[in-house]
Amino acid sequence: MLKAEIIAIGSEMLTPYRTDTNSLWLTERLNSVGIGVQIKTVVGDDEPLLEEAIRDALRRSDVIISTGGLGPTEDDVTRKVFSRVTGRQLTLDYEVLEAIRKRLTSRGYKMTPNNERQALVPRGSTLLANPNGTAPGLKMEQDGKLIVLLPGPPRENQPMFNELVMPDLEKMSRGVRIAKRLLKVTGIGESQLDDQIAPIYTQYTNPATTILFTDSEIELHITATAESVARAEDLVEDLVDKLEEKIGDNLYSTTGQTLEEVIGDRLRLKRYTVATAESCTGGLVAERITQVPGSSDYFLGSIVSYTNEVKTALLGVPARLIDTHGPVSGEVAEAMARGIKERTGATIGLSVTGVAGPAGGTTAVPVGTVYIGLADDVMTSNRRLILPGDRHLIRWRASTAALEMVRRRYLL
Amino acid sequence: MLKAEIIAIGSEMLTPYRTDTNSLWLTERLNSVGIGVQIKTVVGDDEPLLEEAIRDALRRSDVIISTGGLGPTEDDVTRKVFSRVTGRQLTLDYEVLEAIRKRLTSRGYKMTPNNERQALVPRGSTLLANPNGTAPGLKMEQDGKLIVLLPGPPRENQPMFNELVMPDLEKMSRGVRIAKRLLKVTGIGESQLDDQIAPIYTQYTNPATTILFTDSEIELHITATAESVARAEDLVEDLVDKLEEKIGDNLYSTTGQTLEEVIGDRLRLKRYTVATAESCTGGLVAERITQVPGSSDYFLGSIVSYTNEVKTALLGVPARLIDTHGPVSGEVAEAMARGIKERTGATIGLSVTGVAGPAGGTTAVPVGTVYIGLADDVMTSNRRLILPGDRHLIRWRASTAALEMVRRRYLL
Repeated sequence: MLKAEIIAIGSEMLTPYRTDTNSLWLTERLNSVGIGVQIKTVVGDDEPLLEEAIRDALRRSDVIISTGGLGPTEDDVTRKVFSRVTGRQLTLDYEVLEAIRKRLTSRGYKMTPNNERQALVPRGSTLLANPNGTAPGLKMEQDGKLIVLLPGPPRENQPMFNELVMPDLEKMSRGVRIAKRLLKVTGIGESQLDDQIAPIYTQYTNPATTILFTDSEIELHITATAESVARAEDLVEDLVDKLEEKIGDNLYSTTGQTLEEVIGDRLRLKRYTVATAESCTGGLVAERITQVPGSSDYFLGSIVSYTNEVKTALLGVPARLIDTHGPVSGEVAEAMARGIKERTGATIGLSVTGVAGPAGGTTAVPVGTVYIGLADDVMTSNRRLILPGDRHLIRWRASTAALEMVRRRYLL
Repeated sequence: MLKAEIIAIGSEMLTPYRTDTNSLWLTERLNSVGIGVQIKTVVGDDEPLLEEAIRDALRRSDVIISTGGLGPTEDDVTRKVFSRVTGRQLTLDYEVLEAIRKRLTSRGYKMTPNNERQALVPRGSTLLANPNGTAPGLKMEQDGKLIVLLPGPPRENQPMFNELVMPDLEKMSRGVRIAKRLLKVTGIGESQLDDQIAPIYTQYTNPATTILFTDSEIELHITATAESVARAEDLVEDLVDKLEEKIGDNLYSTTGQTLEEVIGDRLRLKRYTVATAESCTGGLVAERITQVPGSSDYFLGSIVSYTNEVKTALLGVPARLIDTHGPVSGEVAEAMARGIKERTGATIGLSVTGVAGPAGGTTAVPVGTVYIGLADDVMTSNRRLILPGDRHLIRWRASTAALEMVRRRYLL
């Protein structure tokens, strides 16, 4: 397997406020042609340190990709240091200069001596045109290794990399082909899932399985390499089939879709509509559902009732019910779900009421207590959860549990 | 200024799914005692590469901090490689072994030979107790340099670093003291703001000013160093005063508070309540307001009306008004704001209606068109915005504009 190395250049990434994230996208692209990333470095606009990083990279890696430091200011040292390390002279490229001049004047800016710097090209390197910015990228071959210099902004470096670098990488990787699948699982604990599936996936080194835990779901990344795409796909498919069978209904996506997207597609297919009534999640369930373009096909609306009065006035939850059982109760969750269903005419009324904290918990109803309510034409039901975490996590997990309850009850 | 270097260890950070983020928090802590980070490396569970990274770090930096790779599995090589590079023998620490055994058995787990690995300690190093996990951290002095080995999870490494490493760093930094201030600005473009304030902040190298742009606001980070905290604070305060005067009402926070927190504090102070009616933001405004603990003091609720029927049925927006002006219009925004104010009894009714896209735009009402409505006891008003970006950004910027409109109208 060929080895790549990524060097992110820019002093702002050595502050507490920003770090390199370009490398995630670049890693995905490299992996897709069978090239692994073995080390990543973040270095400031510091010539000696950058020079050292480049020398190390050239010694140990087959592909060296840098991001950033190609701008017009004096800090931007990438071009200069790469030229020095590779022993190439920097020469002014008049065509590039003209392109930069045109771009700037068309926007009403004047060319400055600093902009000229961006037209300096190390001898024997190839320019990567940048339709989305002034700084072109560069690529060069050095002792059979590929060096690629990209500008920092993703909207500039991603099109350039896809069009002008990926073909070289495909050639270099000599027919290693990759197939991938992303499985998303929710409604089960991490260790419980691993107990179920470890006996399966540990039998394989190809495909490789990576398990990642997020705030309320689990991702399984399955990657196979082979000499052909078809063979790699077969390898992945074989393992995915076994995992799907084992995981069952907790598996909600094998296509990379989010939970919101999966639910949206199935609601549309069944011609169901949904409306939500939210207390502790404060609108998060509605916000997540409506992140999906076209969600107006199946989402009607939501009432966020942050006080008891609003629960009664807008959702028709009887004040007596709230007095008797408390606002965080199965009875109130059901009345909220019923109320929003009736008021909007949705097929499914979905409600969430709970204590997200940090204040507001009691012995009987501690922070993290959440009731999810569901109402349809036939019945009303509720489910109680005790969710761990801080306010942010409890709200997030409650919203996921609510979406998940709709999926399980109506959309399997 | 002393120089630090951070090495993040773990193969998962060389995948497309995860990268090092510990370094952001660590950089803030190091900067706070006047130590700068000059380079960051991400390396997998790979002994030769890690060894090289450590040797380089020891040659060029005063403080070397690693995160990760202290776990019980065979992959975790941190302890072994650091011992080799520093020429220290690994010895089994029976006290640590006992602590790990206790921790595991108290949770019903059995000690495995792998766990014993975590009790191996390089000679002459000091253990950093880990109340939140099994892997203790380590620190050691090597030729006047400080080496710190931390476990990967933030909830384990942060308390450990604050309590057991910061005192050493304070001593090493020999009295360099730092003062910082974070200014947050919204409602003005990036270049427009920079035109205003560059003549001021460029006059200073101490304090240093860093400008960062996020999706809908601008952050100014002001940092001064001096021999005493009081002197550093004076330096910061002097520049902040000048910037505050220049920026005016666009500056909404000098304390690190979010826009939601600033608005919450002022609503509570004025005993105002607010309720929202949302269309294109789908609940995002309510969700952001209720992210703040205690927001039930001033937030009553929201109606998310994702269809015209719900706008009419729940918010009382006349169907005729929607027919005449369209759902995305100043008239409907005002009717929504008035409707939610009347139905909840809030002091302020706030509404958002718009086209977040990607579909739904027309020549007259293109994607990105957003109307914000405000209603109070005296008057109703609306404002039209054309927001750039994709669906996600338009929703985010619309929600920020809505919050910002409340701040400017009622809370200055």
